Amino acid sequence: MTAVVFTLGQLAEQLGATLRGAAHTPVSGLATLQEAGPEQLSFLANPQYRKFLAASRAAAVLLAPADADAEGYSGAALIVADPYLAYAQLSHLFDRKPKALPGVHSTALVAANAQVDASASVGAFAVIESGAQIGANVSIGAHCFIGARSVLGEGGWLAPRVTLYHDVRIGRRVVIQSGAVIGGEGFGFANQQGVWQKIAQLGGVTIGDDVEIGANTTIDRGALADTLIGNGVKLDNQIMIAHNVQIGDHTAMAGCVGISGSTTIGRNCMIAGGVGMVGHIQVCDGVFVTGMTMVTRSISEPGAYSSGTAMQPAAEWRKSAARLRHLDDLARRLQQLEKRLATASQSPVNG
Amino acid sequence: MTAVVFTLGQLAEQLGATLRGAAHTPVSGLATLQEAGPEQLSFLANPQYRKFLAASRAAAVLLAPADADAEGYSGAALIVADPYLAYAQLSHLFDRKPKALPGVHSTALVAANAQVDASASVGAFAVIESGAQIGANVSIGAHCFIGARSVLGEGGWLAPRVTLYHDVRIGRRVVIQSGAVIGGEGFGFANQQGVWQKIAQLGGVTIGDDVEIGANTTIDRGALADTLIGNGVKLDNQIMIAHNVQIGDHTAMAGCVGISGSTTIGRNCMIAGGVGMVGHIQVCDGVFVTGMTMVTRSISEPGAYSSGTAMQPAAEWRKSAARLRHLDDLARRLQQLEKRLATASQSPVNG
Amino acid sequence: MTAVVFTLGQLAEQLGATLRGAAHTPVSGLATLQEAGPEQLSFLANPQYRKFLAASRAAAVLLAPADADAEGYSGAALIVADPYLAYAQLSHLFDRKPKALPGVHSTALVAANAQVDASASVGAFAVIESGAQIGANVSIGAHCFIGARSVLGEGGWLAPRVTLYHDVRIGRRVVIQSGAVIGGEGFGFANQQGVWQKIAQLGGVTIGDDVEIGANTTIDRGALADTLIGNGVKLDNQIMIAHNVQIGDHTAMAGCVGISGSTTIGRNCMIAGGVGMVGHIQVCDGVFVTGMTMVTRSISEPGAYSSGTAMQPAAEWRKSAARLRHLDDLARRLQQLEKRLATASQSPVNG
Repeated sequence: MTAVVFTLGQLAEQLGATLRGAAHTPVSGLATLQEAGPEQLSFLANPQYRKFLAASRAAAVLLAPADADAEGYSGAALIVADPYLAYAQLSHLFDRKPKALPGVHSTALVAANAQVDASASVGAFAVIESGAQIGANVSIGAHCFIGARSVLGEGGWLAPRVTLYHDVRIGRRVVIQSGAVIGGEGFGFANQQGVWQKIAQLGGVTIGDDVEIGANTTIDRGALADTLIGNGVKLDNQIMIAHNVQIGDHTAMAGCVGISGSTTIGRNCMIAGGVGMVGHIQVCDGVFVTGMTMVTRSISEPGAYSSGTAMQPAAEWRKSAARLRHLDDLARRLQQLEKRLATASQSPVNG
Repeated sequence: MTAVVFTLGQLAEQLGATLRGAAHTPVSGLATLQEAGPEQLSFLANPQYRKFLAASRAAAVLLAPADADAEGYSGAALIVADPYLAYAQLSHLFDRKPKALPGVHSTALVAANAQVDASASVGAFAVIESGAQIGANVSIGAHCFIGARSVLGEGGWLAPRVTLYHDVRIGRRVVIQSGAVIGGEGFGFANQQGVWQKIAQLGGVTIGDDVEIGANTTIDRGALADTLIGNGVKLDNQIMIAHNVQIGDHTAMAGCVGISGSTTIGRNCMIAGGVGMVGHIQVCDGVFVTGMTMVTRSISEPGAYSSGTAMQPAAEWRKSAARLRHLDDLARRLQQLEKRLATASQSPVNG
Repeated sequence: MTAVVFTLGQLAEQLGATLRGAAHTPVSGLATLQEAGPEQLSFLANPQYRKFLAASRAAAVLLAPADADAEGYSGAALIVADPYLAYAQLSHLFDRKPKALPGVHSTALVAANAQVDASASVGAFAVIESGAQIGANVSIGAHCFIGARSVLGEGGWLAPRVTLYHDVRIGRRVVIQSGAVIGGEGFGFANQQGVWQKIAQLGGVTIGDDVEIGANTTIDRGALADTLIGNGVKLDNQIMIAHNVQIGDHTAMAGCVGISGSTTIGRNCMIAGGVGMVGHIQVCDGVFVTGMTMVTRSISEPGAYSSGTAMQPAAEWRKSAARLRHLDDLARRLQQLEKRLATASQSPVNG
């Protein structure tokens, strides 16, 4: 595979950027300021990396106007309003991810009454069940399983080995990484004298447009109605979304988050890694939950919420943790002292 | 796929319920009180939903005798001792999960000396290795791998893409969701001057009857003896069960729980989401562990145990957390004050 | 499959151990002191199991010199400097894990320009993409996917159903359990007025020699440069390694750990189960992080670090947790008391 090469001029045009430097300079890739070589484009998004700008060997740097004018760097630049966003946009030009050709691989199994658009690609050993619908320009990797009546909207990309159970409805341009399982049977049981009786999970999963689902993430089907994932939602790896959860548009979750059943999360929330949420609560729009927090009740005000405890040297932590077990006692003793002093201050001795 | 339709009379008979209303009323599905339409059956199990009863459009409602007699609802009802259990039982009638036909798919690979019951179903691209035994009415999904000498008892159901390594013994009517891995090699290493030397994992996994294993859950094989999962155990998604763990009958675990090696958990326990347990401990029967708790020692008394910290607004939490780091100092200062006051109260001044 | 049988003499020779007992005694397996039968070898590594030594029915016991000479056990023994390490070494003799024969299974798909060593084994329905290189004596399980240009060094072992995306470079003797995903697209997005824009992940993953990767563990590819896993690193199940993480040689991580993007971890660290680390921090060599700790900042001193809170009975914990929310207030009140007493002690009353 030969490297793709663009000129600085082409990239400037693509971005609508102001070009400072020679338009014909070749660019064959992207790299950080420290690591970029003379054929690589770099970017300055985080001010803490400004110190690496002067010494960078990059062919050019994506810069905000203020940084381009600042002292200390007069090298080639593509000047844009938001260098990080410009980097995101250009990154796709240099992606070496293989692009599958349209058509169904000879080893794939497509049910007679499934519909696969002629522009879609279906990989080796993939299985597409009865009544499924695969839209235009969809790419389905090897070993994927698309259950009965499931729908994948146009432009979707499934890595190898993704499972969609039956009755999973997915919008357009949705990306799903390897090992993800969508539509598994939610954890529903009725207890009959100590024995758990399974409740069939009759709902499906409905996923909006432009959603990304990470490797080995699981989204269970609903018990009665569907589990719902809004437009533009981004889910990292190893996330667990239980049955009948609803996630609002453009909410992002980092790895290892677990959301219990029937919880509703608003739009434009950010949920950091390792957060857990109990079931049947409502989280409003615009909430940021920091790492490893346990969300035990509904949140009705936008803002940041936490309960993750930061590490200490173990010897120090052991002392804090031992005291924590007796915190109620400690608080009561403090109250006692306060009372005694209050009494004392009213006594003639202090008068 | 046409919807299944029953009459209220048929459902009453199936449950042994008292019918209030017209026996010929058609029922084509189940729904919550708020969402049910005129052909759907609903149920009232949680008193907090009682307020939705009067306005429900449901064809009928599964009700406990007390709720059926209460004021405010005189509509059609199936009166049963435990409406939630009745809902669980009826749910299976309306499940649209595809049922596989008996037989081995033409693309599946079954070793010559594996035994597959004639009533079992083996899906596309499944691999069944030497000496494996598949019982009556088992359903094995596409892309499953059944390792050498592994046994799957009658009535089991494996979603697409489940891995059983070799020497995994599974009882009857066990359900395993997609992505689960049973019998992976446990994490066993001996440290030789800073270098980890692998210990072969010689045990297998033994799983009882009526067990459910969630999507992407992993259960490692034993180091010497088997890892043991009792009858009726229910494991949600993304659970990690390490080598030589033993789980007693009818214990249930919610998502993202991790149990370290050689820990033994009793019967009828409930382990909430995100709980972690250290290795080599014993947890007795009837223990309930709340969400995100770290279980660091054996539990010998039934009851509820916790250490998960509930979230606060981040600004408040930051203050609490900062103080937590100095809690030992704070406790010492309190002791100091107590001593000083004790001395003071013995002094003539206060006498 | 007939059991493998060795004699005590053979095992002594293999280990270079001192044999006490009859060299011709047959040994067909390994077991704990309590469970060993008369054809099984056992070992004493942890002093707390010494009490089981006298009554053990084992054919012989791997013992350190001190334990062999101690009172109370005069039975057969293999005397070695490190019995646990000796057990690790012998364990592989008794492993019943099926060994695949060299060759490409007739159903596997190998791209025309991929290189597969003649001594390698490629399982059923495996897919090996363009430009991939598979070394000598590699074993690739059924349903594995090896992406374009990925490299697997000699002696590697992949369980069934492992995904390597494109441009993943893996060293020699690497073991990967089922469900692992190496090279998935990292979680990189630029926020454009509330909408997340995907950043193509242009880097790959580079993994050293003698690495072990557990079931359903995910290691994301780098955003620009590669994600790096050193030699001898051992990762348990369900671990999440984000893009551009670097892990030093011989570091071990237990299950359910999550490491955020661009964090660097040193050599010979031990990270216990459920630990989370934020992104962009540096952890030095020789750090031990205890279970469920949240690592929120760089660590520059070797040693143990913690923040996991141990469980209490729920009723007690509820009290502690309630006080924890008001800990800042409590600390201020303590300060108040201290001030008042300091003032009081300077007053004439106490003078």
